[in-house]
Amino acid sequence: MSDPWQECMDFCVEVTRQAGKVIREALQKDIAIMQKSSPVDLVTETDQRVEHLIISSIKEKYPTHSFIGEESVAAGAPSILSDNPTWIIDPIDGTTNFVHRFPFVSVSVGFTVKKEIEFGIVYSCIEDKMYTARKGKGAFCNGVPIKVSGQEDITKSLVLTEMGFKNDPEHFRIMMANMKTILSIPVHGIRSPGSAAVNMCLVACGAADAYYHMGIHCWDMAGGAAIITEAGGVIMDISGGSFDLMSRRLVVASSRAIAERIAKEITEFPCGRDDAED
Amino acid sequence: MSDPWQECMDFCVEVTRQAGKVIREALQKDIAIMQKSSPVDLVTETDQRVEHLIISSIKEKYPTHSFIGEESVAAGAPSILSDNPTWIIDPIDGTTNFVHRFPFVSVSVGFTVKKEIEFGIVYSCIEDKMYTARKGKGAFCNGVPIKVSGQEDITKSLVLTEMGFKNDPEHFRIMMANMKTILSIPVHGIRSPGSAAVNMCLVACGAADAYYHMGIHCWDMAGGAAIITEAGGVIMDISGGSFDLMSRRLVVASSRAIAERIAKEITEFPCGRDDAED
Repeated sequence: MSDPWQECMDFCVEVTRQAGKVIREALQKDIAIMQKSSPVDLVTETDQRVEHLIISSIKEKYPTHSFIGEESVAAGAPSILSDNPTWIIDPIDGTTNFVHRFPFVSVSVGFTVKKEIEFGIVYSCIEDKMYTARKGKGAFCNGVPIKVSGQEDITKSLVLTEMGFKNDPEHFRIMMANMKTILSIPVHGIRSPGSAAVNMCLVACGAADAYYHMGIHCWDMAGGAAIITEAGGVIMDISGGSFDLMSRRLVVASSRAIAERIAKEITEFPCGRDDAED
Repeated sequence: MSDPWQECMDFCVEVTRQAGKVIREALQKDIAIMQKSSPVDLVTETDQRVEHLIISSIKEKYPTHSFIGEESVAAGAPSILSDNPTWIIDPIDGTTNFVHRFPFVSVSVGFTVKKEIEFGIVYSCIEDKMYTARKGKGAFCNGVPIKVSGQEDITKSLVLTEMGFKNDPEHFRIMMANMKTILSIPVHGIRSPGSAAVNMCLVACGAADAYYHMGIHCWDMAGGAAIITEAGGVIMDISGGSFDLMSRRLVVASSRAIAERIAKEITEFPCGRDDAED
């Protein structure tokens, strides 16, 4: 029997590429608006438009499938992973980067069946890099196979994470303390590109050796999770246990040794679950 | 009379482009080596080779000019800025990025006459972006004019800085505390791309609104200083005073308001001068 999900994946690549084009056009056309006024409305408008484009295209072709999309959830849709084929969509990963036209902005789509990720697509649309991975078939960037660095020595590693102001002073303190702990191991350095999905792809193609984050969402992680795994990388929960797509936290790395060391060094703060009952 | 330094600038663009090609080829050819062994020797070797290429090409054409180059200084050459026409060269800005093939690696050249910067070139060679600026004639990326965002509200700004482990615990503490202070203003976010010269260019083209750093060198700043100024940005010392190329520290921003606010918030640590007598 042929692969039942390959057709979905091929279709997803096309839809994601179209979505990226819409984002690039919005960045071109709306520079004047973004410089003159608060860009928040523009982001929301583009975010919703891109998510609608993706979901409506897929729904037309696969009417029985389920969806978890950042904007749909924001509008009140449930964020529960079922056994049904499910498309998990971040229309613009890196919205702050989008506002500033900082060059890492991506469209991220992960596809699950029986709660398992079957494929992932991350399109870094300013760089025009299309990252793709089908379970068991490897990871690619613009069609060229990619793999993690294979680095096992954390003192030779380049680590990615993101920092931002947090209203909860205790979370903010822990976030900064974690960064200090990782730097002090020491590592070669920390980089903060500003897009979770791109960060996972940078580790997948060997340009960095690890990425950790608490407080992100399933739509930030689903596409990249397939790519990092198929590129030979390791993905786990920040506690060191199995990766949980709905847990809002992750460590990815070029090797188990580095992932486990980061998980061991990091202090957790509670960030809830995507599938929590309100 | 025609511009006496335009010819030097045109020549510099060509030499810098050749240097970037050598770096890209090193990244392509030596992936296997970098993954298998300590990459330190490879970096040093490429760094020295690129600096030699740049300096020997320029010396042949302009035998009376002076040079300050990262690798020459490391080998014992003086780092004193005189009134003579002087080329200030960083053959690979972002050496840690180079080692990891993280996508921001640049060649940076600034040219001074009577201690004033006449032009600056930064070639971000993996991205293939050639940033150029001639005093009084504007800043360009691949020939297209660029300008800063013009943002004046720091709470809407994206800020760049770099973090790394420092052997001096007090410096390390201040670096982390500064980051926390800036995040708490709050700002939209902090990004760390890992190349001082590229950071200055990202502010120059409006993809970020500010960049601050202590502990860098004149060869990290000279090329970018021309570009940020000609793009309509502000460059100053971290104390809030005038920018000093040999002071090893700077703030650049899209507006005076943001630069002054960052200078006010930052706690200084002593980092010496490039032209200090040993």
